[in-house]
Amino acid sequence: MEPSVPNPPGWTDVQTSLKQAMAACAQAVEDTIGRLLPSTDLAEARVFDAMRYGCLNGGKRLRPFLVIQSADLFGVNPECAERVAAAVEMVHSYSLIHDDLPAMDDSDLRRGKPTCHKAFDEATAVLAGDGLLTLAFEVLADPATHEDPNIRCQLVTALAKAAGGHGMVGGQMLDLIAETERFDLGATTRLQRMKTGEMIAFSCEAGGILGRAAPPHRTALRAYAHDLGLAFQIVDDLLDVEGTEAETGKSVGRDAEAGKATFVSILGVDRARAQADLLAKQAVAHLDIFEGRAHLLEAVADFVVARRT
Amino acid sequence: MEPSVPNPPGWTDVQTSLKQAMAACAQAVEDTIGRLLPSTDLAEARVFDAMRYGCLNGGKRLRPFLVIQSADLFGVNPECAERVAAAVEMVHSYSLIHDDLPAMDDSDLRRGKPTCHKAFDEATAVLAGDGLLTLAFEVLADPATHEDPNIRCQLVTALAKAAGGHGMVGGQMLDLIAETERFDLGATTRLQRMKTGEMIAFSCEAGGILGRAAPPHRTALRAYAHDLGLAFQIVDDLLDVEGTEAETGKSVGRDAEAGKATFVSILGVDRARAQADLLAKQAVAHLDIFEGRAHLLEAVADFVVARRT
Repeated sequence: MEPSVPNPPGWTDVQTSLKQAMAACAQAVEDTIGRLLPSTDLAEARVFDAMRYGCLNGGKRLRPFLVIQSADLFGVNPECAERVAAAVEMVHSYSLIHDDLPAMDDSDLRRGKPTCHKAFDEATAVLAGDGLLTLAFEVLADPATHEDPNIRCQLVTALAKAAGGHGMVGGQMLDLIAETERFDLGATTRLQRMKTGEMIAFSCEAGGILGRAAPPHRTALRAYAHDLGLAFQIVDDLLDVEGTEAETGKSVGRDAEAGKATFVSILGVDRARAQADLLAKQAVAHLDIFEGRAHLLEAVADFVVARRT
Repeated sequence: MEPSVPNPPGWTDVQTSLKQAMAACAQAVEDTIGRLLPSTDLAEARVFDAMRYGCLNGGKRLRPFLVIQSADLFGVNPECAERVAAAVEMVHSYSLIHDDLPAMDDSDLRRGKPTCHKAFDEATAVLAGDGLLTLAFEVLADPATHEDPNIRCQLVTALAKAAGGHGMVGGQMLDLIAETERFDLGATTRLQRMKTGEMIAFSCEAGGILGRAAPPHRTALRAYAHDLGLAFQIVDDLLDVEGTEAETGKSVGRDAEAGKATFVSILGVDRARAQADLLAKQAVAHLDIFEGRAHLLEAVADFVVARRT
């Protein structure tokens, strides 16, 4: 499906470069995670196997891409950016592993494969999530991530805030509450900003932290990430209604089944789609300060609203 | 029950000072955690309530005590040490919350109260554990914990190593594997060193990191913690056999029920008790380098083997 507004000239070329850049990034992050989380013959290998299973699964790697692209804007050493990208993906993967548990969303399928607790078992999945979250902080605090310990501490702080009770974990709590309480548009927006938006914001912010970006550039990236994150979530809700399991690689129709308020249930399909398009345009506008150098971040915004998976 | 060797003269006085110091530490840590994790009226309050429930429950606070006492040896600002002690207790509490889950140990009782998933629900307990682990790293990376970001990064790194797949999480994986595989004394010792020993070692090491201790002092604290941790775990196994639910505040006889190898099942009660006493003496001997200034850490070793809870 194409976005509901006509594509500008050259859109296909830009999307082709984007796809190539995203594929290169996905490979680099896969390699970095593989190095940070090697297979082992130790007696406790099972938990490392589950961590690798949950992390090395060929996802879109949107968050790592945002880290690497935002870092590139400030001339950051790619190896440092890749470590932060790997840490972000570890946190994202841990959240999916725990979110899929029977006590949470009870999902059997993720990216077209059995979820971690199906491939292993529930106890191992709980531990694998815990291990990935812990490893992410270990990676950030390591001197290899940045020579300046102040920068490393800033990364740890920002990631912990994005992932914790006032960020992703709080958002997941709200998501559970939304199963039994009626959330309006404001409450749903806040839920999604916390549940997915804060980690997307961290991904963009991380490049600015690594590159000691000036405040206006940081503000621009945060504003971009804020709009991108909401657009991303609205499209997620649309895919839950319009997508197929074969396309998305995960169970669909789950929100409606649970009677959960989503952007689509509140706004309807057409207004939700229009809102996502508007947010994507707004996201791109925040990047004007980079005078065209952020063209791949601009293209991501189009990609996010056009995606089918 | 008294330890199986006669107590030296003045033992009761020392144990009385220790009890007072531990009570003061427990209160200080309770206050610090309460400040770092305040009640909230936000919509996601439930996860914060569960985090507070899992953390603010009047435990012995052994690990915080080790942080505060080891920091005191090097003249560290008590407020800094209390923040690290709070972070350690958050990680310990998260591990108990996840360990008690139905998919893991399936425990209903912890410190005489319903476990977190019983008092709340499983999904909230998973998130509360995740939130506490994340908050611990946020606390360590905060400038209020130490003015030097290098020290803060060292704390994050050391905690992540102690809590992750090569530490506590790996030990918990081994503990699950031990339910179906026969572990010998060597494998059981390694399991316990990872499952509980590494976090006890971090607690003692943290004081040395905060106080920029010289290598011999760090080595002494690590060796002390190593022996103390094993003694602690052997006594835990003894209490699972000899203790009552009223004394320990948790379910007893679980290991035998699960057919799990423990120090007691491998060594028998008498040799296990003798081994715990020996390890406690050995732990104390490592503190000679502090020329009596570590008398409360010495007393903790006696306390650990004499405890009934």
